[in-house]
Amino acid sequence: MNYCLASCAFPSSHTTLLRNKLSPFLFRRNRSHQTLQLCRRNFQIRAMRAVIQRVSSSSVTVDGRIVSEIGPGLLVLIGIHESDTDADADYICRKVLNMRLFTNEATGRGWDQNVMQRGYGVLLVSQFTLYGFMKGNKPDFHVAMPPEKAKPFYASLIERFQKAYNKPDAVKDGVFGAMMKVNLVNDGPVTMQLESPQSSKNETKASTES
Amino acid sequence: MNYCLASCAFPSSHTTLLRNKLSPFLFRRNRSHQTLQLCRRNFQIRAMRAVIQRVSSSSVTVDGRIVSEIGPGLLVLIGIHESDTDADADYICRKVLNMRLFTNEATGRGWDQNVMQRGYGVLLVSQFTLYGFMKGNKPDFHVAMPPEKAKPFYASLIERFQKAYNKPDAVKDGVFGAMMKVNLVNDGPVTMQLESPQSSKNETKASTES
Repeated sequence: MNYCLASCAFPSSHTTLLRNKLSPFLFRRNRSHQTLQLCRRNFQIRAMRAVIQRVSSSSVTVDGRIVSEIGPGLLVLIGIHESDTDADADYICRKVLNMRLFTNEATGRGWDQNVMQRGYGVLLVSQFTLYGFMKGNKPDFHVAMPPEKAKPFYASLIERFQKAYNKPDAVKDGVFGAMMKVNLVNDGPVTMQLESPQSSKNETKASTES
Repeated sequence: MNYCLASCAFPSSHTTLLRNKLSPFLFRRNRSHQTLQLCRRNFQIRAMRAVIQRVSSSSVTVDGRIVSEIGPGLLVLIGIHESDTDADADYICRKVLNMRLFTNEATGRGWDQNVMQRGYGVLLVSQFTLYGFMKGNKPDFHVAMPPEKAKPFYASLIERFQKAYNKPDAVKDGVFGAMMKVNLVNDGPVTMQLESPQSSKNETKASTES
């Protein structure tokens, strides 16, 4: 069993008091990095992830054939965690479509317009390797949602994007599970990492574990 | 001041005992998500970040001119945090060069060889947007290392990669701070996210704040 006290800003007198009272139960201060590593691991493995790249153009090729392409817009690589739900999909969809990654050409103001305001394309590609954790130097992907469950979930995510975008044809996708060559011209470059918020899941996990 | 108890696996009798003793100082259980969000924020903003893409080829174009290119290998986008040190650079360099993202063609075994074992190229590109935090829908980049400090730090990172790789010419870079078009063919696709471990920094931060 692991006990942890992640004290962020205790007045020092309280810290001493608490440490004395809690020493049988808690890691001592000089072990707080273990505490924080535990917290971190919980977060790392409980969210839908996206890597978003602003592109001049992008396309997906399978067996030498282009199966999908967009002009300027966003290439969005999606990693689905085994615990993801519709709430995670909602969050990622809303954030990606609304994040202001484009310059407003009328005013010259940067980071001002979202992809829908520009009428640009969105190319979604499933990417289970976003759940790769390094075991030594070898990636391990066991927390990604298994393919048989991820495939329909991913299909529903595409539909969600198409419904949310006022121009559904602008949303394209790759081929789930296929070996793909994903061509892109990253414009800037601009690459963003996004994770769905997981407070409710972690709350549940903490209750289960205690 | 923020107090937090991130209890991961307390036996319930201990939890009750602790909660009673600590209630004046600590968030109650039903607020544990706030605790965890605080922990998370500390982690998010205190590490060197890399997004690694396995590529068939990649190149960087500035003002319509190709300034750098590789064949098969890794495109590595690097985000430098304002608090990063040589230890972070060491970690990222070692992990990127050793992570096994390539199939061993002799045995057919996947996730078996690193980029050096294949003699493949590494294209490093600075990417401050990896420190973009969404304020609503607008990205904020204030925790990225400021350019005047990041430029020499980034140059030393390139050198570090070149020294560590037994074939220094295989390591290429973009143009720091320039508007670039980064072309790539993501092969798989395979995209990995990496962060340097920050236990020592967080330890220091916790001591400073208490």
